[in-house]
Amino acid sequence: MCIFCQIAKKKIPAEIVYEDEKVLAFKDIHPIAPVHVLVITKEHVESVNELVDEQLAGRLILVGKRVAQDLAISEKGYKLLFRVGADGGQEVSHIHLHVLGGAKLYEEIRAE
Amino acid sequence: MCIFCQIAKKKIPAEIVYEDEKVLAFKDIHPIAPVHVLVITKEHVESVNELVDEQLAGRLILVGKRVAQDLAISEKGYKLLFRVGADGGQEVSHIHLHVLGGAKLYEEIRAE
Repeated sequence: MCIFCQIAKKKIPAEIVYEDEKVLAFKDIHPIAPVHVLVITKEHVESVNELVDEQLAGRLILVGKRVAQDLAISEKGYKLLFRVGADGGQEVSHIHLHVLGGAKLYEEIRAE
Repeated sequence: MCIFCQIAKKKIPAEIVYEDEKVLAFKDIHPIAPVHVLVITKEHVESVNELVDEQLAGRLILVGKRVAQDLAISEKGYKLLFRVGADGGQEVSHIHLHVLGGAKLYEEIRAE
């Protein structure tokens, strides 16, 4: 079973910050920002490419926003990021939205 | 009127790659990747913080995915990114989803 499915089923512990019937949000164990939370679907969906449910896609975003509010990074700002596939840098094959904030974030993205 | 509202109303030209009744996607005039498209709401919404419609949030993501398919970067991969507010690096106060791909993307994000 994939590692994020195991977290969704509570077989692996995680620091959960939000949960409902469709999605789960937990702190990334290798944070790259003072706040770094992952929002995942409970159902296994490999990536954005396999996501077809508009409501579920929207839920991921609105939960990202809600987590930002709950963790008090909302007003100053944050990033919401999906990495998709190899070129996109996706590391776990279960859709996850990165919520990144808690400081002014330096960002560089460019073609290699 | 904000610049993205003017693009949505066709008062300013843009290289449009997708359009429906709710959202518009067009090429970023300052691309940071071989493919760099912005997906915006036609209605003025300042940022993810002001987005409340789950369906509309989902539409932005699924249109990002569709644009990636249409521009043939889907299989190799891409990034979908919302910058929100000052810490998030948002530059135009009208919600826009960055679709970034067309090459293996180097990415660095860190707290300043």
